[in-house]
Amino acid sequence: MREEATAFVPGHITGFFSAHPADDPTMAGSRGAGLTLTDGVTVTVEPVAEEASESIVILDGEMIEIEPVDIVLETLDVVARVEAESDLPLGAGFGISGAMALGTALAANRVFGCKLSRNELVTIAHGAEVQAGTGLGDVVAQDCGGIPIRLEPGGPQENKLDAIPARARVEYVSFGELSTADVLAGETDQLTAAGKEALSRVVEEPTLLSFMYASRLFAREAELLTEEVAHTIGDVTDVNGQASMAMLGETVFALGTGLSDAGYEPSVCATHPAGALLR
Amino acid sequence: MREEATAFVPGHITGFFSAHPADDPTMAGSRGAGLTLTDGVTVTVEPVAEEASESIVILDGEMIEIEPVDIVLETLDVVARVEAESDLPLGAGFGISGAMALGTALAANRVFGCKLSRNELVTIAHGAEVQAGTGLGDVVAQDCGGIPIRLEPGGPQENKLDAIPARARVEYVSFGELSTADVLAGETDQLTAAGKEALSRVVEEPTLLSFMYASRLFAREAELLTEEVAHTIGDVTDVNGQASMAMLGETVFALGTGLSDAGYEPSVCATHPAGALLR
Repeated sequence: MREEATAFVPGHITGFFSAHPADDPTMAGSRGAGLTLTDGVTVTVEPVAEEASESIVILDGEMIEIEPVDIVLETLDVVARVEAESDLPLGAGFGISGAMALGTALAANRVFGCKLSRNELVTIAHGAEVQAGTGLGDVVAQDCGGIPIRLEPGGPQENKLDAIPARARVEYVSFGELSTADVLAGETDQLTAAGKEALSRVVEEPTLLSFMYASRLFAREAELLTEEVAHTIGDVTDVNGQASMAMLGETVFALGTGLSDAGYEPSVCATHPAGALLR
Repeated sequence: MREEATAFVPGHITGFFSAHPADDPTMAGSRGAGLTLTDGVTVTVEPVAEEASESIVILDGEMIEIEPVDIVLETLDVVARVEAESDLPLGAGFGISGAMALGTALAANRVFGCKLSRNELVTIAHGAEVQAGTGLGDVVAQDCGGIPIRLEPGGPQENKLDAIPARARVEYVSFGELSTADVLAGETDQLTAAGKEALSRVVEEPTLLSFMYASRLFAREAELLTEEVAHTIGDVTDVNGQASMAMLGETVFALGTGLSDAGYEPSVCATHPAGALLR
């Protein structure tokens, strides 16, 4: 057994999506597209002392309960101390819970010598997210890196991915949280219709500009825009920038210097060229 | 049209493989596993002057003909100057031709605004390699990064990939070239049988150690070992290191400090965490 292992998982902003529930969590998921980010989550896993019988999860120095992480550890049948550090706010649409789940799976596999393959680990993390209701597509996107297009839902055995072959500077500002679980528990017909339309558009023209356009249209049609988010996107548009809303959080992201140009003081990162990786 | 675009494509050492021909080059390919490397090829594409009607390909400062690159440019219907720099020797089992083809596809798509998706570009580069007879699995592995396991052959629309979730320092020494085209044109039944057995082993235990073991067994059973390669692998084994032969080149690669420990003066790199990327 190793003493510890560390994984970095990029953040993931979903621009648009459609929800695809299924009884088997590894088959459930979402279609859609998003940006993986150089801002992400660093997850370190180590075995707990022998007398301890429960896993501990820490995010940015504070003990926290993150259900998908618990499910991953249970599935791997290990008891561990999971310590994560994140550049990103929790609950604001950056896929932190997915990153925690995937990072835990990758690092625990190494520490405890589980001998699982990458796809098996991604399947476990994806299934845990779906089961916990915290996300539908972040994990498979975070496994992939870049600017993934999720053509078919589900874990790696089921899904089909493509990507926009580009990279970009990304700016973001976050005004608060939105509950993914609440939105997904509500009426999703309109959202799903809007998500499918956005996906067709991006498949037809897999460029960053068409992604941003499709994302803005989706946010409006799915009626997820809050007033502050709509206002901020408008400000970026006014200076000829490209911005949209992170699904699901009260967060606006923009390409290049869109938010700075509009007078905001955004966090700055870039699209992440790689998927989750062991340090 | 942009002035130029640059892509980096990791080198790829195949440890073992089985060949799977098909009439459609995007369906043909190989099963197997290998290491993508931080040593790779940087490919810069720019439009040629208007009066020129032919593409130019340059590798490490010298004009060169690389058929898969020509096929990629013809498929994209562009005339370009392609300038590549490589850390790796040509023809020695590092997937240079695949890297050149994939890098050209990614960079040309950006320069000429072709608006193709990542999968489409990988399909074009993979098909070009197969058509030219220069490789069967490097391109899809180089698209993926890490330590890819090719479960099903073909381009991204057809194949199935997994990966060994690990990373490693990699050392290599190269004694010369082997022609991929010659080996593939010969009798491949024994090679294919050995490749399938090696793949079963790595699927059952997707770890670096089992990959190295399966690769050594494959090289012996497929009767591809040259005297110098066999001798060098033996030297690394004698110091308890892990080494095998790169398919296809007269090249020995080792994990960690295997070759240094055995008294060689190897080139040193590491597994590359990401697939091909735009700079």
